[in-house]
Amino acid sequence: MEQNEILTQLRQRKSVRAWEDRPVPPQVRQALLEAAFQAPTAGNQMLYTILEVTDPALKARLAETCDHQPFIATAPLVLVFLADCQRWLDAYEAAGCHPRRPGPGDLMLAASDALIAAQNTVVAAHSMGLGSCYIGDVLEQCETHRQLLGLTEYVVPAAMVVYGYPTRQQQERTKPARFRSQWVVCENRYHRNTPEQLRQMFACQAQDGGRSSWDFDSYLQAFCKRKYDSDFSREMSRSCGEYWKAFLKEPENR
Amino acid sequence: MEQNEILTQLRQRKSVRAWEDRPVPPQVRQALLEAAFQAPTAGNQMLYTILEVTDPALKARLAETCDHQPFIATAPLVLVFLADCQRWLDAYEAAGCHPRRPGPGDLMLAASDALIAAQNTVVAAHSMGLGSCYIGDVLEQCETHRQLLGLTEYVVPAAMVVYGYPTRQQQERTKPARFRSQWVVCENRYHRNTPEQLRQMFACQAQDGGRSSWDFDSYLQAFCKRKYDSDFSREMSRSCGEYWKAFLKEPENR
Repeated sequence: MEQNEILTQLRQRKSVRAWEDRPVPPQVRQALLEAAFQAPTAGNQMLYTILEVTDPALKARLAETCDHQPFIATAPLVLVFLADCQRWLDAYEAAGCHPRRPGPGDLMLAASDALIAAQNTVVAAHSMGLGSCYIGDVLEQCETHRQLLGLTEYVVPAAMVVYGYPTRQQQERTKPARFRSQWVVCENRYHRNTPEQLRQMFACQAQDGGRSSWDFDSYLQAFCKRKYDSDFSREMSRSCGEYWKAFLKEPENR
Repeated sequence: MEQNEILTQLRQRKSVRAWEDRPVPPQVRQALLEAAFQAPTAGNQMLYTILEVTDPALKARLAETCDHQPFIATAPLVLVFLADCQRWLDAYEAAGCHPRRPGPGDLMLAASDALIAAQNTVVAAHSMGLGSCYIGDVLEQCETHRQLLGLTEYVVPAAMVVYGYPTRQQQERTKPARFRSQWVVCENRYHRNTPEQLRQMFACQAQDGGRSSWDFDSYLQAFCKRKYDSDFSREMSRSCGEYWKAFLKEPENR
Protein backbone atom coordinates (compact mmCIF):
# COMPACT_ATOMS: atom_id res chain seq x y z
CA MET A 1 0.00 0.00 0.00
CA GLU A 2 1.11 3.58 -0.64
CA GLN A 3 2.59 5.45 2.28
CA ASN A 4 3.24 9.10 3.00
CA GLU A 5 3.00 11.47 5.93
CA ILE A 6 -0.67 12.31 5.32
CA LEU A 7 -1.73 8.67 5.06
CA THR A 8 0.18 7.89 8.23
CA GLN A 9 -1.51 10.70 10.12
CA LEU A 10 -4.98 9.74 8.87
CA ARG A 11 -4.31 6.20 10.08
CA GLN A 12 -3.00 7.25 13.48
CA ARG A 13 -5.59 9.86 14.39
CA LYS A 14 -7.95 8.75 17.15
CA SER A 15 -10.48 10.55 19.31
CA VAL A 16 -9.26 12.39 22.41
CA ARG A 17 -11.49 12.97 25.43
CA ALA A 18 -9.08 14.27 28.10
CA TRP A 19 -7.04 17.43 27.78
CA GLU A 20 -3.88 18.91 29.14
CA ASP A 21 -4.49 22.22 30.84
CA ARG A 22 -3.13 24.20 27.92
CA PRO A 23 -4.93 26.66 25.65
CA VAL A 24 -5.07 26.45 21.86
CA PRO A 25 -2.92 29.31 20.50
CA PRO A 26 -4.69 31.78 18.18
CA GLN A 27 -2.54 30.81 15.17
CA VAL A 28 -3.48 27.13 15.65
CA ARG A 29 -7.17 28.02 15.91
CA GLN A 30 -6.82 30.14 12.77
CA ALA A 31 -5.16 27.28 10.87
CA LEU A 32 -8.02 24.96 11.88
CA LEU A 33 -10.62 27.39 10.59
CA GLU A 34 -8.69 27.92 7.38
CA ALA A 35 -8.62 24.14 6.85
CA ALA A 36 -12.41 24.18 7.17
CA PHE A 37 -12.84 27.02 4.67
CA GLN A 38 -10.61 25.28 2.14
CA ALA A 39 -12.59 22.05 2.26
CA PRO A 40 -14.69 21.08 -0.76
CA THR A 41 -18.10 22.77 -0.69
CA ALA A 42 -21.07 22.34 -3.02
CA GLY A 43 -20.91 24.99 -5.75
CA ASN A 44 -18.45 26.96 -3.58
CA GLN A 45 -21.44 27.95 -1.42
CA MET A 46 -20.05 27.12 2.07
CA LEU A 47 -23.47 26.00 3.27
CA TYR A 48 -22.37 26.02 6.90
CA THR A 49 -21.66 28.31 9.81
CA ILE A 50 -19.01 27.53 12.40
CA LEU A 51 -20.17 28.53 15.84
CA GLU A 52 -17.29 28.81 18.28
CA VAL A 53 -18.26 28.28 21.90
CA THR A 54 -16.05 30.48 24.08
CA ASP A 55 -18.46 31.22 26.94
CA PRO A 56 -17.58 28.83 29.83
CA ALA A 57 -21.20 28.79 30.99
CA LEU A 58 -22.38 27.77 27.53
CA LYS A 59 -19.71 25.05 27.32
CA ALA A 60 -20.83 23.74 30.69
CA ARG A 61 -24.43 23.75 29.54
CA LEU A 62 -23.59 21.88 26.31
CA ALA A 63 -21.62 19.35 28.35
CA GLU A 64 -24.95 18.58 30.04
CA THR A 65 -27.30 18.81 27.07
CA CYS A 66 -24.97 16.65 24.92
CA ASP A 67 -25.50 13.52 26.99
CA HIS A 68 -23.56 14.61 30.10
CA GLN A 69 -19.97 14.54 28.87
CA PRO A 70 -17.85 16.73 31.19
CA PHE A 71 -14.83 16.84 28.85
CA ILE A 72 -16.85 19.19 26.62
CA ALA A 73 -16.84 21.80 29.40
CA THR A 74 -13.07 21.63 29.80
CA ALA A 75 -12.15 21.55 26.11
CA PRO A 76 -10.06 24.60 25.20
CA LEU A 77 -11.68 24.84 21.76
CA VAL A 78 -15.28 23.93 20.90
CA LEU A 79 -16.74 24.37 17.42
CA VAL A 80 -20.32 23.61 16.37
CA PHE A 81 -20.65 23.01 12.62
CA LEU A 82 -24.09 24.18 11.59
CA ALA A 83 -25.79 23.15 8.35
CA ASP A 84 -26.85 26.63 7.24
CA CYS A 85 -29.74 26.91 4.79
CA GLN A 86 -30.45 30.42 6.04
CA ARG A 87 -27.55 32.49 4.72
CA TRP A 88 -28.10 31.94 1.00
CA LEU A 89 -31.88 32.15 1.43
CA ASP A 90 -31.42 35.58 2.98
CA ALA A 91 -28.99 36.57 0.23
CA TYR A 92 -31.47 35.56 -2.47
CA GLU A 93 -34.15 37.60 -0.79
CA ALA A 94 -31.78 40.55 -0.38
CA ALA A 95 -31.25 40.39 -4.17
CA GLY A 96 -34.98 40.51 -4.83
CA CYS A 97 -35.46 36.81 -5.62
CA HIS A 98 -38.45 34.82 -4.42
CA PRO A 99 -36.72 31.55 -3.52
CA ARG A 100 -38.55 28.36 -2.57
CA ARG A 101 -38.30 27.19 1.05
CA PRO A 102 -35.34 24.90 1.80
CA GLY A 103 -36.26 21.22 1.51
CA PRO A 104 -34.73 17.90 2.56
CA GLY A 105 -32.11 18.02 -0.21
CA ASP A 106 -30.93 21.43 0.92
CA LEU A 107 -30.52 20.22 4.49
CA MET A 108 -28.61 17.10 3.42
CA LEU A 109 -26.33 19.14 1.16
CA ALA A 110 -25.65 21.73 3.86
CA ALA A 111 -24.99 19.01 6.44
CA SER A 112 -22.54 17.46 3.97
CA ASP A 113 -20.71 20.75 3.58
CA ALA A 114 -20.58 21.17 7.35
CA LEU A 115 -19.24 17.66 7.98
CA ILE A 116 -16.65 17.82 5.20
CA ALA A 117 -15.39 21.10 6.67
CA ALA A 118 -15.41 19.60 10.18
CA GLN A 119 -13.32 16.63 9.10
CA ASN A 120 -10.73 18.95 7.56
CA THR A 121 -10.34 20.64 10.95
CA VAL A 122 -9.93 17.24 12.62
CA VAL A 123 -7.16 16.31 10.17
CA ALA A 124 -5.56 19.75 10.55
CA ALA A 125 -5.77 19.50 14.36
CA HIS A 126 -3.96 16.17 14.41
CA SER A 127 -1.17 17.58 12.23
CA MET A 128 -0.56 20.25 14.88
CA GLY A 129 -0.57 17.82 17.81
CA LEU A 130 -4.10 18.70 18.79
CA GLY A 131 -6.60 16.01 19.73
CA SER A 132 -10.27 16.17 18.81
CA CYS A 133 -13.56 14.41 19.35
CA TYR A 134 -16.87 14.56 17.48
CA ILE A 135 -19.91 15.02 19.69
CA GLY A 136 -22.84 13.58 17.77
CA ASP A 137 -25.07 14.31 20.75
CA VAL A 138 -25.34 17.91 19.57
CA LEU A 139 -28.09 16.54 17.29
CA GLU A 140 -30.20 15.91 20.41
CA GLN A 141 -32.29 18.45 22.31
CA CYS A 142 -33.50 20.42 19.29
CA GLU A 143 -35.58 22.92 21.27
CA THR A 144 -32.86 23.53 23.89
CA HIS A 145 -30.04 23.89 21.37
CA ARG A 146 -32.07 26.16 19.11
CA GLN A 147 -32.64 28.45 22.04
CA LEU A 148 -29.11 28.18 23.49
CA LEU A 149 -27.34 28.77 20.17
CA GLY A 150 -29.92 31.13 18.63
CA LEU A 151 -30.63 28.91 15.62
CA THR A 152 -33.26 29.78 13.05
CA GLU A 153 -35.47 27.01 11.65
CA TYR A 154 -33.17 26.59 8.63
CA VAL A 155 -29.97 26.23 10.67
CA VAL A 156 -29.31 22.75 12.07
CA PRO A 157 -26.35 21.35 14.03
CA ALA A 158 -24.45 18.84 11.89
CA ALA A 159 -21.60 18.14 14.30
CA MET A 160 -19.79 19.49 17.31
CA VAL A 161 -16.06 18.99 17.58
CA VAL A 162 -14.02 19.62 20.74
CA TYR A 163 -10.26 20.10 20.53
CA GLY A 164 -7.37 20.20 22.96
CA TYR A 165 -3.92 18.83 23.67
CA PRO A 166 -4.20 15.16 24.64
CA THR A 167 -3.07 13.83 27.97
CA ARG A 168 -0.34 11.17 27.96
CA GLN A 169 -2.95 8.53 28.77
CA GLN A 170 -5.02 9.56 25.74
CA GLN A 171 -1.98 9.51 23.46
CA GLU A 172 -1.19 5.97 24.54
CA ARG A 173 -4.74 4.68 24.26
CA THR A 174 -5.15 1.96 21.63
CA LYS A 175 -7.26 2.92 18.64
CA PRO A 176 -10.19 0.49 18.38
CA ALA A 177 -10.11 -2.03 15.53
CA ARG A 178 -12.45 -1.30 12.62
CA PHE A 179 -14.47 -3.82 10.63
CA ARG A 180 -12.42 -5.41 7.89
CA SER A 181 -12.70 -4.02 4.38
CA GLN A 182 -14.64 -6.97 2.98
CA TRP A 183 -17.66 -6.16 5.18
CA VAL A 184 -17.74 -2.44 4.44
CA VAL A 185 -16.96 -2.27 0.73
CA CYS A 186 -19.12 -3.71 -2.03
CA GLU A 187 -18.99 -3.59 -5.81
CA ASN A 188 -21.66 -2.10 -8.08
CA ARG A 189 -24.55 -3.20 -5.89
CA TYR A 190 -25.31 -2.93 -2.17
CA HIS A 191 -24.64 -6.21 -0.44
CA ARG A 192 -26.86 -6.96 2.54
CA ASN A 193 -24.97 -9.27 4.87
CA THR A 194 -26.49 -12.53 6.03
CA PRO A 195 -26.67 -13.24 9.78
CA GLU A 196 -23.71 -15.60 9.37
CA GLN A 197 -21.66 -12.90 7.61
CA LEU A 198 -22.51 -10.43 10.35
CA ARG A 199 -21.28 -12.90 12.96
CA GLN A 200 -18.05 -13.26 11.00
CA MET A 201 -17.69 -9.49 10.69
CA PHE A 202 -17.85 -8.99 14.44
CA ALA A 203 -15.68 -12.03 15.12
CA CYS A 204 -12.94 -10.67 12.85
CA GLN A 205 -13.14 -7.28 14.58
CA ALA A 206 -12.89 -8.91 18.00
CA GLN A 207 -9.88 -10.89 16.80
CA ASP A 208 -8.20 -7.79 15.29
CA GLY A 209 -8.87 -5.93 18.54
CA GLY A 210 -7.34 -8.71 20.62
CA ARG A 211 -10.58 -9.61 22.39
CA SER A 212 -10.21 -13.31 23.04
CA SER A 213 -13.30 -14.15 25.03
CA TRP A 214 -16.17 -12.74 23.09
CA ASP A 215 -19.74 -13.71 22.28
CA PHE A 216 -21.74 -12.23 19.40
CA ASP A 217 -25.18 -12.42 21.01
CA SER A 218 -24.31 -10.98 24.39
CA TYR A 219 -22.07 -8.29 22.85
CA LEU A 220 -24.76 -7.12 20.41
CA GLN A 221 -27.52 -7.31 22.99
CA ALA A 222 -25.52 -5.16 25.41
CA PHE A 223 -24.53 -2.72 22.65
CA CYS A 224 -28.13 -2.42 21.46
CA LYS A 225 -29.33 -1.65 24.96
CA ARG A 226 -26.48 0.78 25.74
CA LYS A 227 -26.43 2.60 22.38
CA TYR A 228 -29.14 2.02 19.80
CA ASP A 229 -32.09 1.60 22.11
CA SER A 230 -30.76 4.04 24.70
CA ASP A 231 -32.57 7.18 25.80
CA PHE A 232 -30.00 9.41 24.10
CA SER A 233 -30.33 7.58 20.79
CA ARG A 234 -34.12 7.80 20.84
CA GLU A 235 -33.79 11.46 21.79
CA MET A 236 -31.48 12.02 18.82
CA SER A 237 -34.10 10.67 16.43
CA ARG A 238 -36.87 12.67 18.05
CA SER A 239 -34.76 15.83 17.91
CA CYS A 240 -33.66 15.36 14.29
CA GLY A 241 -37.30 14.73 13.41
CA GLU A 242 -38.08 18.15 14.88
CA TYR A 243 -35.34 19.78 12.81
CA TRP A 244 -36.66 18.04 9.70
CA LYS A 245 -40.13 19.54 10.12
CA ALA A 246 -39.09 22.96 8.81
CA PHE A 247 -37.72 21.27 5.68
CA LEU A 248 -40.85 19.23 5.10
CA LYS A 249 -43.19 22.18 4.75
CA GLU A 250 -44.81 23.01 1.44
CA PRO A 251 -41.85 23.22 -0.97
CA GLU A 252 -43.39 25.68 -3.42
CA ASN A 253 -42.61 29.36 -3.70
CA ARG A 254 -43.34 31.29 -0.55
CA MET B 1 -0.64 31.00 11.15
CA GLU B 2 0.79 27.52 11.65
CA GLN B 3 2.15 25.74 8.59
CA ASN B 4 2.98 22.14 7.84
CA GLU B 5 2.65 19.74 4.93
CA ILE B 6 -0.88 18.64 5.86
CA LEU B 7 -2.18 22.20 6.24
CA THR B 8 -0.62 23.11 2.90
CA GLN B 9 -2.25 20.18 1.16
CA LEU B 10 -5.66 20.88 2.72
CA ARG B 11 -5.37 24.46 1.46
CA GLN B 12 -4.28 23.50 -2.04
CA ARG B 13 -6.75 20.71 -2.71
CA LYS B 14 -9.41 21.62 -5.26
CA SER B 15 -11.99 19.66 -7.20
CA VAL B 16 -10.93 17.90 -10.38
CA ARG B 17 -13.37 17.15 -13.20
CA ALA B 18 -11.11 16.03 -16.09
CA TRP B 19 -8.83 13.02 -15.96
CA GLU B 20 -5.71 11.76 -17.60
CA ASP B 21 -6.24 8.40 -19.26
CA ARG B 22 -4.47 6.54 -16.46
CA PRO B 23 -5.89 3.97 -14.05
CA VAL B 24 -5.69 4.17 -10.27
CA PRO B 25 -3.23 1.47 -9.10
CA PRO B 26 -4.59 -1.11 -6.65
CA GLN B 27 -2.27 0.02 -3.83
CA VAL B 28 -3.51 3.61 -4.21
CA ARG B 29 -7.14 2.46 -4.15
CA GLN B 30 -6.36 0.39 -1.07
CA ALA B 31 -4.74 3.37 0.69
CA LEU B 32 -7.84 5.47 -0.06
CA LEU B 33 -10.14 2.87 1.45
CA GLU B 34 -7.89 2.48 4.48
CA ALA B 35 -8.05 6.27 5.01
CA ALA B 36 -11.85 5.96 5.04
CA PHE B 37 -11.85 3.09 7.55
CA GLN B 38 -9.52 4.99 9.88
CA ALA B 39 -11.76 8.08 9.94
CA PRO B 40 -13.64 8.92 13.13
CA THR B 41 -16.90 6.99 13.37
CA ALA B 42 -19.68 7.21 15.96
CA GLY B 43 -19.08 4.59 18.65
CA ASN B 44 -16.70 2.77 16.26
CA GLN B 45 -19.78 1.58 14.37
CA MET B 46 -18.76 2.49 10.78
CA LEU B 47 -22.34 3.37 9.90
CA TYR B 48 -21.58 3.39 6.19
CA THR B 49 -20.97 1.17 3.21
CA ILE B 50 -18.63 2.13 0.40
CA LEU B 51 -20.02 1.03 -2.92
CA GLU B 52 -17.35 0.95 -5.61
CA VAL B 53 -18.68 1.40 -9.13
CA THR B 54 -16.52 -0.63 -11.49
CA ASP B 55 -19.11 -1.56 -14.13
CA PRO B 56 -18.66 0.88 -17.07
CA ALA B 57 -22.36 0.66 -17.92
CA LEU B 58 -23.31 1.61 -14.35
CA LYS B 59 -20.83 4.51 -14.37
CA ALA B 60 -22.33 5.73 -17.63
CA ARG B 61 -25.82 5.46 -16.16
CA LEU B 62 -24.82 7.38 -13.02
CA ALA B 63 -23.22 10.05 -15.20
CA GLU B 64 -26.73 10.57 -16.59
CA THR B 65 -28.79 10.19 -13.42
CA CYS B 66 -26.44 12.51 -11.49
CA ASP B 67 -27.38 15.60 -13.49
CA HIS B 68 -25.67 14.63 -16.76
CA GLN B 69 -21.98 14.95 -15.86
CA PRO B 70 -19.93 12.93 -18.38
CA PHE B 71 -16.71 13.05 -16.32
CA ILE B 72 -18.34 10.56 -13.93
CA ALA B 73 -18.39 7.95 -16.69
CA THR B 74 -14.70 8.39 -17.45
CA ALA B 75 -13.46 8.54 -13.83
CA PRO B 76 -11.09 5.64 -13.14
CA LEU B 77 -12.36 5.30 -9.56
CA VAL B 78 -15.94 5.95 -8.39
CA LEU B 79 -17.06 5.43 -4.79
CA VAL B 80 -20.56 5.94 -3.42
CA PHE B 81 -20.60 6.51 0.33
CA LEU B 82 -23.84 5.10 1.69
CA ALA B 83 -25.31 6.01 5.06
CA ASP B 84 -26.01 2.47 6.25
CA CYS B 85 -28.65 1.99 8.94
CA GLN B 86 -29.22 -1.57 7.76
CA ARG B 87 -26.06 -3.41 8.81
CA TRP B 88 -26.32 -2.88 12.55
CA LEU B 89 -30.09 -3.37 12.48
CA ASP B 90 -29.53 -6.77 10.87
CA ALA B 91 -26.80 -7.58 13.39
CA TYR B 92 -29.10 -6.72 16.31
CA GLU B 93 -31.76 -8.97 14.85
CA ALA B 94 -29.23 -11.74 14.23
CA ALA B 95 -28.37 -11.52 17.93
CA GLY B 96 -32.01 -11.92 18.94
CA CYS B 97 -32.68 -8.25 19.79
CA HIS B 98 -35.91 -6.48 18.88
CA PRO B 99 -34.51 -3.10 17.83
CA ARG B 100 -36.65 -0.05 17.05
CA ARG B 101 -36.81 1.12 13.42
CA PRO B 102 -34.10 3.62 12.41
CA GLY B 103 -35.26 7.21 12.82
CA PRO B 104 -34.06 10.64 11.64
CA GLY B 105 -31.21 10.71 14.17
CA ASP B 106 -29.89 7.39 12.93
CA LEU B 107 -29.87 8.62 9.34
CA MET B 108 -28.11 11.87 10.25
CA LEU B 109 -25.49 10.01 12.29
CA ALA B 110 -24.88 7.46 9.54
CA ALA B 111 -24.65 10.21 6.90
CA SER B 112 -22.10 11.94 9.15
CA ASP B 113 -20.01 8.78 9.37
CA ALA B 114 -20.19 8.37 5.60
CA LEU B 115 -19.16 11.97 4.86
CA ILE B 116 -16.34 11.99 7.39
CA ALA B 117 -14.98 8.82 5.80
CA ALA B 118 -15.43 10.30 2.32
CA GLN B 119 -13.46 13.41 3.21
CA ASN B 120 -10.59 11.30 4.51
CA THR B 121 -10.39 9.63 1.09
CA VAL B 122 -10.37 13.04 -0.60
CA VAL B 123 -7.46 14.17 1.59
CA ALA B 124 -5.66 10.86 1.07
CA ALA B 125 -6.21 11.08 -2.70
CA HIS B 126 -4.67 14.53 -2.91
CA SER B 127 -1.61 13.33 -0.99
CA MET B 128 -1.05 10.71 -3.70
CA GLY B 129 -1.50 13.13 -6.60
CA LEU B 130 -5.03 11.98 -7.28
CA GLY B 131 -7.78 14.50 -7.97
CA SER B 132 -11.33 14.07 -6.72
CA CYS B 133 -14.78 15.59 -6.96
CA TYR B 134 -17.88 15.21 -4.81
CA ILE B 135 -21.06 14.52 -6.74
CA GLY B 136 -23.91 15.77 -4.57
CA ASP B 137 -26.33 14.85 -7.34
CA VAL B 138 -26.25 11.24 -6.15
CA LEU B 139 -28.87 12.44 -3.62
CA GLU B 140 -31.29 12.89 -6.53
CA GLN B 141 -33.37 10.21 -8.25
CA CYS B 142 -34.15 8.16 -5.14
CA GLU B 143 -36.20 5.50 -6.94
CA THR B 144 -33.71 5.09 -9.78
CA HIS B 145 -30.66 4.95 -7.52
CA ARG B 146 -32.32 2.53 -5.10
CA GLN B 147 -32.96 0.20 -8.00
CA LEU B 148 -29.60 0.72 -9.74
CA LEU B 149 -27.52 0.27 -6.59
CA GLY B 150 -29.78 -2.26 -4.83
CA LEU B 151 -30.37 -0.08 -1.77
CA THR B 152 -32.69 -1.14 1.03
CA GLU B 153 -34.95 1.47 2.62
CA TYR B 154 -32.42 2.07 5.42
CA VAL B 155 -29.45 2.64 3.12
CA VAL B 156 -29.17 6.16 1.67
CA PRO B 157 -26.51 7.75 -0.54
CA ALA B 158 -24.60 10.40 1.41
CA ALA B 159 -22.04 11.29 -1.23
CA MET B 160 -20.43 10.06 -4.39
CA VAL B 161 -16.77 10.84 -5.00
CA VAL B 162 -14.99 10.35 -8.31
CA TYR B 163 -11.19 10.14 -8.45
CA GLY B 164 -8.54 10.24 -11.14
CA TYR B 165 -5.27 11.84 -12.15
CA PRO B 166 -5.89 15.48 -13.06
CA THR B 167 -5.16 16.88 -16.48
CA ARG B 168 -2.65 19.74 -16.71
CA GLN B 169 -5.50 22.18 -17.27
CA GLN B 170 -7.21 21.02 -14.08
CA GLN B 171 -4.00 21.30 -12.07
CA GLU B 172 -3.55 24.87 -13.22
CA ARG B 173 -7.14 25.93 -12.61
CA THR B 174 -7.51 28.62 -9.94
CA LYS B 175 -9.28 27.51 -6.79
CA PRO B 176 -12.35 29.71 -6.26
CA ALA B 177 -12.20 32.25 -3.42
CA ARG B 178 -14.21 31.35 -0.32
CA PHE B 179 -16.22 33.73 1.84
CA ARG B 180 -14.05 35.48 4.40
CA SER B 181 -13.93 34.08 7.93
CA GLN B 182 -15.95 36.88 9.50
CA TRP B 183 -19.08 35.84 7.57
CA VAL B 184 -18.83 32.13 8.31
CA VAL B 185 -17.71 32.04 11.95
CA CYS B 186 -19.71 33.33 14.90
CA GLU B 187 -19.22 33.24 18.65
CA ASN B 188 -21.57 31.54 21.12
CA ARG B 189 -24.70 32.43 19.19
CA TYR B 190 -25.78 32.10 15.57
CA HIS B 191 -25.51 35.41 13.80
CA ARG B 192 -28.02 35.99 11.04
CA ASN B 193 -26.52 38.42 8.56
CA THR B 194 -28.36 41.57 7.54
CA PRO B 195 -28.95 42.25 3.83
CA GLU B 196 -26.15 44.82 3.98
CA GLN B 197 -23.75 42.28 5.53
CA LEU B 198 -24.67 39.74 2.87
CA ARG B 199 -23.85 42.28 0.18
CA GLN B 200 -20.48 42.89 1.83
CA MET B 201 -19.86 39.14 2.11
CA PHE B 202 -20.29 38.63 -1.63
CA ALA B 203 -18.41 41.83 -2.48
CA CYS B 204 -15.40 40.65 -0.47
CA GLN B 205 -15.50 37.27 -2.19
CA ALA B 206 -15.68 38.90 -5.63
CA GLN B 207 -12.73 41.09 -4.68
CA ASP B 208 -10.70 38.14 -3.35
CA GLY B 209 -11.52 36.22 -6.53
CA GLY B 210 -10.38 39.11 -8.75
CA ARG B 211 -13.82 39.75 -10.21
CA SER B 212 -13.80 43.46 -10.89
CA SER B 213 -17.11 44.06 -12.61
CA TRP B 214 -19.67 42.44 -10.40
CA ASP B 215 -23.22 43.17 -9.26
CA PHE B 216 -24.84 41.56 -6.23
CA ASP B 217 -28.41 41.52 -7.49
CA SER B 218 -27.77 40.13 -10.95
CA TYR B 219 -25.20 37.59 -9.62
CA LEU B 220 -27.57 36.25 -6.96
CA GLN B 221 -30.56 36.24 -9.28
CA ALA B 222 -28.64 34.23 -11.88
CA PHE B 223 -27.23 31.87 -9.23
CA CYS B 224 -30.66 31.32 -7.71
CA LYS B 225 -32.12 30.45 -11.10
CA ARG B 226 -29.18 28.25 -12.14
CA LYS B 227 -28.70 26.44 -8.81
CA TYR B 228 -31.18 26.83 -5.99
CA ASP B 229 -34.37 27.04 -8.02
CA SER B 230 -33.10 24.68 -10.73
CA ASP B 231 -34.76 21.41 -11.67
CA PHE B 232 -31.89 19.37 -10.20
CA SER B 233 -32.05 21.19 -6.88
CA ARG B 234 -35.81 20.69 -6.59
CA GLU B 235 -35.30 17.07 -7.58
CA MET B 236 -32.71 16.68 -4.83
CA SER B 237 -35.19 17.86 -2.21
CA ARG B 238 -37.94 15.64 -3.58
CA SER B 239 -35.62 12.64 -3.65
CA CYS B 240 -34.22 13.21 -0.14
CA GLY B 241 -37.80 13.59 1.08
CA GLU B 242 -38.47 10.11 -0.34
CA TYR B 243 -35.44 8.68 1.49
CA TRP B 244 -36.61 10.35 4.70
CA LYS B 245 -39.98 8.60 4.59
CA ALA B 246 -38.57 5.26 5.79
CA PHE B 247 -37.07 7.06 8.78
CA LEU B 248 -40.28 8.87 9.66
CA LYS B 249 -42.37 5.76 10.18
CA GLU B 250 -43.62 4.83 13.60
CA PRO B 251 -40.46 4.80 15.73
CA GLU B 252 -41.60 2.22 18.29
CA ASN B 253 -40.55 -1.39 18.46
CA ARG B 254 -41.35 -3.34 15.34
